[in-house]
Amino acid sequence: MAAVEAPQTVGRTPRVDAARLAVVVLVGAAIWLVPEPAGVQPRAWHLLAVFVAMMVGIVLRPLPMGAVAFVATAFAVLSGTLTIAEATAGFGNTVVWLVVAAFFIATAFVKTGLGTRIAYHFMRVLGKRSLGLAYGFIAADLVLAPAIPSNTARAGGVLYPVLRSLCVSLGSDVELGTERRIAAFLTFTAYQGVVVTSAMFLTAMAANPLVAELAGQQGVELSWPLWALAASVPGVLSLLLVPALIYRLYPPQITSTPTAPELARQRLAELGAMKRDEWILLAVFVCLLSLWILGGTLGISATTTALAGVAAMLATGALAWSDLLEERNGWDTLIWFAVLVMMASQLGELGLLAWFTDQVSGVLATGHWLPAFLSLSLIYFYVHYFFASNTAHVSAMYAPFLALALAVGTPPVLAALVLAFFSNLFASLTHYGTAAAPILFGSGNVDIGTWWRLGALISLVHIAIWLGAGSLWWRLLGLW
Amino acid sequence: MAAVEAPQTVGRTPRVDAARLAVVVLVGAAIWLVPEPAGVQPRAWHLLAVFVAMMVGIVLRPLPMGAVAFVATAFAVLSGTLTIAEATAGFGNTVVWLVVAAFFIATAFVKTGLGTRIAYHFMRVLGKRSLGLAYGFIAADLVLAPAIPSNTARAGGVLYPVLRSLCVSLGSDVELGTERRIAAFLTFTAYQGVVVTSAMFLTAMAANPLVAELAGQQGVELSWPLWALAASVPGVLSLLLVPALIYRLYPPQITSTPTAPELARQRLAELGAMKRDEWILLAVFVCLLSLWILGGTLGISATTTALAGVAAMLATGALAWSDLLEERNGWDTLIWFAVLVMMASQLGELGLLAWFTDQVSGVLATGHWLPAFLSLSLIYFYVHYFFASNTAHVSAMYAPFLALALAVGTPPVLAALVLAFFSNLFASLTHYGTAAAPILFGSGNVDIGTWWRLGALISLVHIAIWLGAGSLWWRLLGLW
Repeated sequence: MAAVEAPQTVGRTPRVDAARLAVVVLVGAAIWLVPEPAGVQPRAWHLLAVFVAMMVGIVLRPLPMGAVAFVATAFAVLSGTLTIAEATAGFGNTVVWLVVAAFFIATAFVKTGLGTRIAYHFMRVLGKRSLGLAYGFIAADLVLAPAIPSNTARAGGVLYPVLRSLCVSLGSDVELGTERRIAAFLTFTAYQGVVVTSAMFLTAMAANPLVAELAGQQGVELSWPLWALAASVPGVLSLLLVPALIYRLYPPQITSTPTAPELARQRLAELGAMKRDEWILLAVFVCLLSLWILGGTLGISATTTALAGVAAMLATGALAWSDLLEERNGWDTLIWFAVLVMMASQLGELGLLAWFTDQVSGVLATGHWLPAFLSLSLIYFYVHYFFASNTAHVSAMYAPFLALALAVGTPPVLAALVLAFFSNLFASLTHYGTAAAPILFGSGNVDIGTWWRLGALISLVHIAIWLGAGSLWWRLLGLW
Repeated sequence: MAAVEAPQTVGRTPRVDAARLAVVVLVGAAIWLVPEPAGVQPRAWHLLAVFVAMMVGIVLRPLPMGAVAFVATAFAVLSGTLTIAEATAGFGNTVVWLVVAAFFIATAFVKTGLGTRIAYHFMRVLGKRSLGLAYGFIAADLVLAPAIPSNTARAGGVLYPVLRSLCVSLGSDVELGTERRIAAFLTFTAYQGVVVTSAMFLTAMAANPLVAELAGQQGVELSWPLWALAASVPGVLSLLLVPALIYRLYPPQITSTPTAPELARQRLAELGAMKRDEWILLAVFVCLLSLWILGGTLGISATTTALAGVAAMLATGALAWSDLLEERNGWDTLIWFAVLVMMASQLGELGLLAWFTDQVSGVLATGHWLPAFLSLSLIYFYVHYFFASNTAHVSAMYAPFLALALAVGTPPVLAALVLAFFSNLFASLTHYGTAAAPILFGSGNVDIGTWWRLGALISLVHIAIWLGAGSLWWRLLGLW
């Protein structure tokens, strides 16, 4: 997911894991040196070598993801595989700037304090009981999700600080050995909530627009309103069921939290009345949501809306230019996102995806698409045990798996949506599955065994809900 | 020049100067509402309104330059003047990424300490006398200039800290009232040196590649080697003459500085042997210069070279990814540069520049080009009294003045070069003329009166050298 620094970049040395870098180079060199198969031009094959090496690099992380993408691009240009104009064209992609602009909007939620205020509001209303608190955090997360594409920012920047101060006030703290009172339950529920809310909006997770772009390259348009509408029913079901399930299987020791609403009220009193910048952000946020929903009808692209929202905040001073310049995650995302989109699009233009589809569609049995697609999507889901980032997984596997699904005859929108949603939901599995995971796991409130056991169980619930209720809902909507 | 924050962005409020913003909006609205002249399409006229308002905004700074550019772009798209794809295309421009990559290389010079080491080396060799010290700083500046497009980084990040510690050790400090011993002389010479070195390489000042891009849009290619070659003779003359002139008219009280080389030796001893990262940077730097010079012959673009240099430092760990993500000036430049290039190119494509040239070439007298061009270039130079940034001046005036110069019949390369070099040299005039100025002026070592008086005199020296010796040299090179 979005742009968390790998441990090796903290401090000045060591910044490069040489052994892993060697593996990356060897993989790339091996593919590069194999003669290209018939029907593939040499340049396409060389780009595939660079692309695969980059994917291995994104997974193994000899360097942070953005640096891997940067180095791969420089190599592709220097070796004559891409022209410099082709290589930099990705930075002009409109979807890239949708994501970057959304990062700037997320910054405003954190800097103005509106995100925290929203979290305290839900805590005040829903916080009398432990389960209510969990739903309160999830509700706050859901409200923020459409405008905060970094689940790290939602979980780490907004929810976790509120959650932590609440747990301490309730005497539940891992340092005192009392985390099972309530901290463990709330932490794990908040994490599983972020996983679902990330799946629910095109702009709720940094790799979602990448998914949309990759699907678009194969002819399936996933617009902002289509995504939100398709995710709404299964998303709400998951958000309702999963906390109840965790409450049953991993219950907090206290079920009643009468002091929590009072704490929230107190914190809101400390925050005082909504400040000017918060009102501006709120107005911008409402306009953003409206235009993202109605943009298709009005002919305003999602990127235009996002840029205009940021511009409105800059012009009114609700967001300072220096806040943007310091938004490291936004710049990081700019680089890796642009490179991935550019490489994927070049691979498509050089005919590699078409060649791949030709190859596999010849090999695949010509039975009904359903069992084939079920297998494909389950493999796509559970392979995530081997990934520490949604983005790495999406950029390595979304395009070929969608191509395979289409080749076996799956209805295109169904295939694109299932793989899109799974691109978020698979993060339920592990304590490193997406960038928000290490933050919440790092609290120490939840042990690994529980995380994995419950994560596996929750993955089954998600799959049942999204493939079952989801596909029915999409059928009702006439999407397939 | 590059990306120094306006004072209003320091701290959280006030971030916007509402009165100035109102002026910007009024200017834009006035042009927008005037009916377009015959021969201009409405869309071109509206874009001109946005562009002129943006220029006024860059000069008046109701917001930092990057924010002005961002807001102008959002408005252009939202108003239907540009499509979103046209608006973001500028971010894919190869020249934009040459500048951004060069900012990253500059970061490496500061972070590894190699820049400081080079400055001490020259101080050790040339530092026995005051005038020698001045030439030493200029030599260090000249060595760093090709790879550091931010004259702020050269003057403020590398030279000034060395200069300041030297002056303190020589007992010359504005706080003691002893700045005229040597600090005043060295500070002013270092500033005037940076002005000249900025003019000498395409990559020595952030707006130089913008100049090249704007010239390219009018059919004059200013490549890296052409720029360096053309600037070499007049540049060296300016660098030799100006310090001697300052030494004569604004002399330091001490002329002999026998302890300076010793101080430099001591500081170099403290730095120890060249570190691994410095060696890597040095190697990269040598490759960069070679490939920038030979790139045309080898078919490697300047951007490819710069990206490869950054990639080499990332892959070897000489530069950390986090160093790049924190390079605010680079990201700032990315935004304003891409927007300016995009708008200028759109104005060209919509036929506005051609229309403008048609209008003026009809009006202009049909005498010899020489007096007309002399007047144009002198106006271009001295209008800089009204600008606080090279970039603002270049982006507002370079393209129309070049168009005018071409319309009166000036040889194209001559016109493009003179205006290009003047785009740096005009910063000699004032204590706010380019981003490095406030840093050195802010030291308090030099009073405003001296700065302006000597600045005006030095401007005459530059004009004589660059128009006189320069044009002869370019004639010899067969450029006109």
